[in-house]
Amino acid sequence: MTMKHFGPTKLDASLIPKIARQWGTPVYLHDQEYIENSCERLLNMPNAYGLHVRYAMKANSDRTVLRVVTNKGLDLDCSSLDEAARAFAAGVPYSRMMLTTQEVPSGEERAELEQMIRAGLKYNVCSMTQFQLIADFAKNNNIDLSIRVHPGANGGGESATRDTGSEYSCFGVHLNDVPQVKALADKQGLRFTQVHVHIGSGGDPEKWRENIDRELGFVRTYFPDATTVSFGGGLKVARMPGEKQADITALGAYAAQRIKEFKEATGRELQMEIEPGTYVVANSGHIITRIIDKKLTNELNFLIVDGGMELLTRPLLYGSEHPIAIVRQDGTLLSSEYDAKPTAGLKSFGIVGRCCESGDSVRLDNDGNIVPVMIAEPEIGDYVVIGGTGAYSESMSPENYNSHRKPPAVMRTRTSELVLIRKKQVREQLVLNELDVKL
Amino acid sequence: MTMKHFGPTKLDASLIPKIARQWGTPVYLHDQEYIENSCERLLNMPNAYGLHVRYAMKANSDRTVLRVVTNKGLDLDCSSLDEAARAFAAGVPYSRMMLTTQEVPSGEERAELEQMIRAGLKYNVCSMTQFQLIADFAKNNNIDLSIRVHPGANGGGESATRDTGSEYSCFGVHLNDVPQVKALADKQGLRFTQVHVHIGSGGDPEKWRENIDRELGFVRTYFPDATTVSFGGGLKVARMPGEKQADITALGAYAAQRIKEFKEATGRELQMEIEPGTYVVANSGHIITRIIDKKLTNELNFLIVDGGMELLTRPLLYGSEHPIAIVRQDGTLLSSEYDAKPTAGLKSFGIVGRCCESGDSVRLDNDGNIVPVMIAEPEIGDYVVIGGTGAYSESMSPENYNSHRKPPAVMRTRTSELVLIRKKQVREQLVLNELDVKL
Repeated sequence: MTMKHFGPTKLDASLIPKIARQWGTPVYLHDQEYIENSCERLLNMPNAYGLHVRYAMKANSDRTVLRVVTNKGLDLDCSSLDEAARAFAAGVPYSRMMLTTQEVPSGEERAELEQMIRAGLKYNVCSMTQFQLIADFAKNNNIDLSIRVHPGANGGGESATRDTGSEYSCFGVHLNDVPQVKALADKQGLRFTQVHVHIGSGGDPEKWRENIDRELGFVRTYFPDATTVSFGGGLKVARMPGEKQADITALGAYAAQRIKEFKEATGRELQMEIEPGTYVVANSGHIITRIIDKKLTNELNFLIVDGGMELLTRPLLYGSEHPIAIVRQDGTLLSSEYDAKPTAGLKSFGIVGRCCESGDSVRLDNDGNIVPVMIAEPEIGDYVVIGGTGAYSESMSPENYNSHRKPPAVMRTRTSELVLIRKKQVREQLVLNELDVKL
Repeated sequence: MTMKHFGPTKLDASLIPKIARQWGTPVYLHDQEYIENSCERLLNMPNAYGLHVRYAMKANSDRTVLRVVTNKGLDLDCSSLDEAARAFAAGVPYSRMMLTTQEVPSGEERAELEQMIRAGLKYNVCSMTQFQLIADFAKNNNIDLSIRVHPGANGGGESATRDTGSEYSCFGVHLNDVPQVKALADKQGLRFTQVHVHIGSGGDPEKWRENIDRELGFVRTYFPDATTVSFGGGLKVARMPGEKQADITALGAYAAQRIKEFKEATGRELQMEIEPGTYVVANSGHIITRIIDKKLTNELNFLIVDGGMELLTRPLLYGSEHPIAIVRQDGTLLSSEYDAKPTAGLKSFGIVGRCCESGDSVRLDNDGNIVPVMIAEPEIGDYVVIGGTGAYSESMSPENYNSHRKPPAVMRTRTSELVLIRKKQVREQLVLNELDVKL
């Protein structure tokens, strides 16, 4: 077996048992260099009159991840007041955040929102209600706003549940309502200096280009004060070897060209903004699980690993595919879907987790049936390493299902050190808020 | 508007604003009387030679819920070592638990498992590996075992992801392997005094009856020492008004008849065991959310509420339906799907949550598209009360997605008091295990 490194982070297979022994399994693994390189690729996207990149922190909100990303120069997009407060606690100033939320804070939370905005947080108005509630405050404090517009067109999400541009999506001020909001803003002397559209996650580059054209169209029609145009996130990442990743150079070049044409037509120089989440962190992450049981039946073979849907729910939620590598206890790479090696002597296994739920598998079809993977047969005690898990894994999973505890997370640093960035939950934390009630 | 009480717990609409004001929204609400009545109905199921009911605690593992259930006389089925430890911490002795898990504990956890078994926990062998690893210990300590058998037949789950009896399911010792396990057990003088089959959740009563017949068949063939036969859980609960609930009296009568016939044929009197989770708690629970925004478009109207997929993921995971009631700020019941009242003047609304995700809705079709509900039009500040949320809601949801905090939980007691049983998470708890790492 000569293969040793695998996947987008060129992970050294011999590290897997080392990490597993030191911190136990399951364990999340992240890669600083990969994250930093993603950030650099994004910051180097072609652009016309400047580029501003905000990391959509809901993809992975861990303190250390936020620091790596913001140290590279990305600012943040926050989707809740709690997210903004969390980023601030991690050391990021509010002036580096935009808030794009469904929330309409009242009471103490409203006071906190105002404090954040005064400290420089950019407020991205997402509804008529939000506008009406923020207008006086913005006017009195001389604060410019951003507006999220629902383009009233089909978006580019990979699945219905992640398509935020379709008629079924509730996000943003609908294009039909923009004239009314704009009239109200004008009346108060309020300015929308930024316009934002996000059409969905992981979608089609063609839809991204269509959105650029459409958005620049209504920026021209409705928003004479806009100096920044945000095209949102949704840059497709190739987790599986066969998948096609968004060509951000081509998208950047396309956007730059359109923004230059906009300048020629209007005399206005627009800064471009994007808000990737998945693109920054998805392929930096792996989950290391241990094979704890193996079942060979006449019908289907199973490997039971010690982490599944409670750590990574995307397969169950969306039928998403994540690549699998099998590493032996001695650190040799037994097989890897990244490289499709070896190609002979493979056996079919359903890989399932430790939850008492049939859909607890890393590979499911759209009907929720387990899809077997073809791998060289491992032994109990070997490791199943699941790739592409840096985004929407630890931030979006029911980690305490079956009372399992949220696993630790480790960062491989730029200097190839392995550093624990989050400890494993302890049992007491599962019930920390439960009260001792006598009924 | 004369309607006042709604749903299976006969919830008084005027309590909703009271609860919301005292503990904030969103908030989970449970009902002691409903849970206790469920327990009684189960304990009163017809049976031949005794009935033993174990609550499948993964449905809702809250300490107070566990106490209500066990005080009524139900024992517990645990799906992980952490669950067993959690129940013990809540005051339940190990002698009242069975462990049915995919886990194969090693090291310290193995030692803990042995300690639990010595203290009376019933170990339900779920694989050949588990049997091989427990055999010597069981023999040396003179401990009888239970065995979970995979019947090698299609199960009764409502969806593929909850069907644990099909060829795609990995749970239990496959019927094909039973002779081998049995031979090994005989060689060591080990006894399986209990046989267990669970064919899936929320399924067809006909499948349940078929399973009884099949299971009694192989109990007779392979397990002469069995004194208890467990038919698992999966008793269908009607969350929506039109749904048909499992007729547990009829199922009990059927099982009793078959067990009597078994006695006639073999002379053996089998105790029946069942392990319901959903049946005990699902309809005891509601989530109270507040309408924070409203969008009327030409295409689809939206109510945005302050809790969704991060509190109840079943609609997104399985397309599950949960009934909706709308309560005004003054405590009047505006409309209720439970009673299908009123029937005129209704308007179509998509009800969506506060997460930045298109699938964050309480009503989705199988493709993940939002399904509008027909309700009387409420105002911002009114409440959307979601029913049937006592099971697999707070125990199985990505509660910290978008950095939202796990909401508090309130129990309406037998004496109609409202008691806080779990406090709302505080922000510091979101990052409690994150380390302060300098990279």
